[in-house]
Amino acid sequence: MPRISDSTIRRLSHYYRVLEEVEAEGKRLISSRRLAEREGITSAQVRKDLSYFGSFGRRGLGYNVAHLREEIRAILGLDRRWRVGVVGAGNLGTALIAYRGFTRQGFDVVAAFDHDAHRIGQKLGDLIVRDVAELPQASAELKLDLGVIATPVRAAQEVADALVAAGVRGILNLAPRKLFVPDHVTLRMVDMTVEFESLSFALHQARPPRRRRAAG
Amino acid sequence: MPRISDSTIRRLSHYYRVLEEVEAEGKRLISSRRLAEREGITSAQVRKDLSYFGSFGRRGLGYNVAHLREEIRAILGLDRRWRVGVVGAGNLGTALIAYRGFTRQGFDVVAAFDHDAHRIGQKLGDLIVRDVAELPQASAELKLDLGVIATPVRAAQEVADALVAAGVRGILNLAPRKLFVPDHVTLRMVDMTVEFESLSFALHQARPPRRRRAAG
Repeated sequence: MPRISDSTIRRLSHYYRVLEEVEAEGKRLISSRRLAEREGITSAQVRKDLSYFGSFGRRGLGYNVAHLREEIRAILGLDRRWRVGVVGAGNLGTALIAYRGFTRQGFDVVAAFDHDAHRIGQKLGDLIVRDVAELPQASAELKLDLGVIATPVRAAQEVADALVAAGVRGILNLAPRKLFVPDHVTLRMVDMTVEFESLSFALHQARPPRRRRAAG
Repeated sequence: MPRISDSTIRRLSHYYRVLEEVEAEGKRLISSRRLAEREGITSAQVRKDLSYFGSFGRRGLGYNVAHLREEIRAILGLDRRWRVGVVGAGNLGTALIAYRGFTRQGFDVVAAFDHDAHRIGQKLGDLIVRDVAELPQASAELKLDLGVIATPVRAAQEVADALVAAGVRGILNLAPRKLFVPDHVTLRMVDMTVEFESLSFALHQARPPRRRRAAG
């Protein structure tokens, strides 16, 4: 299989959502055009994305909704459950733990950790906040697959190192700074500032950008 | 100017971060290779992205750091300040309001709104949480440019409609559901489930995907 770009994987998540919706509406077939249905995705892109993973659909007929959904589910690794530990039980961590949608897609938050003595021992939904010092032991006991970093920026790299040492293979970083992890660990980052910038770009477009040479 | 894809804009945000870092290190020039420096971006992609906006850099010399940073700043609309209202003063909204990084990049959260009588009137940092019913009036008074939706899913579309009616031109949606806004309003969404799925995909890749026909 060729290296699949991050953008392709994001689009697969998007197709998966659309397929869920369309299946709930009771439809059996879907066109690549309906699957695209988002600004910036073309039908040709949909066909190309799906072609990476084998041969789905028939020309002129479209894709079988249930089968394609199941295939994408398997491709994204959603046909099993993933055990998630959240480090940082402040507002952001608490918001994450409260959100039930992750469970629906196969992600079970099974542990919450914090550094702060005031938070350790507190209940967050069904979880009791643990001391982040217990991470290695808890990770082994609970068989954590994924870690979420919802700490302040200054703690983020240290927590990433601890998660890696504890054997976690995937990390979602919500702290707005670049982190370093070894090659065998996958790191994703949510940076809201990037989203804000994408909005300011769009709102700003009415004004033409300045064009001048920047070479010095 | 051609239509710029969302991915290009995200990469511009990334280049901007790298340029800030490199400038802080006191460097004057930067190669497209150093600007790429992230999984999935090539030097050729960097040159293509920057070519949309005019002619920067000199072959073999690289880009002037300060000038390129300033140009991207202007392209992204970061050479002015943007006034942001956050709707939903729960954990997620509170986490957003507490984060000072937005201010650094030009985004000032100037108002927080909620529906819940227990939250209205409470202090969040320098802000007093307002009743979401005051949104139209507050938006006009405060000249809101952008709105953030940090409410539960069920309230999200109603809040989006209210933000649009209040004249906001850009919306960042953190509630995990698809929202509809008129064409003149720009909508971005942060969906953490998509990030989780990108992690499960990566961790799952060791196993080859099943290949069978999904066409019915």
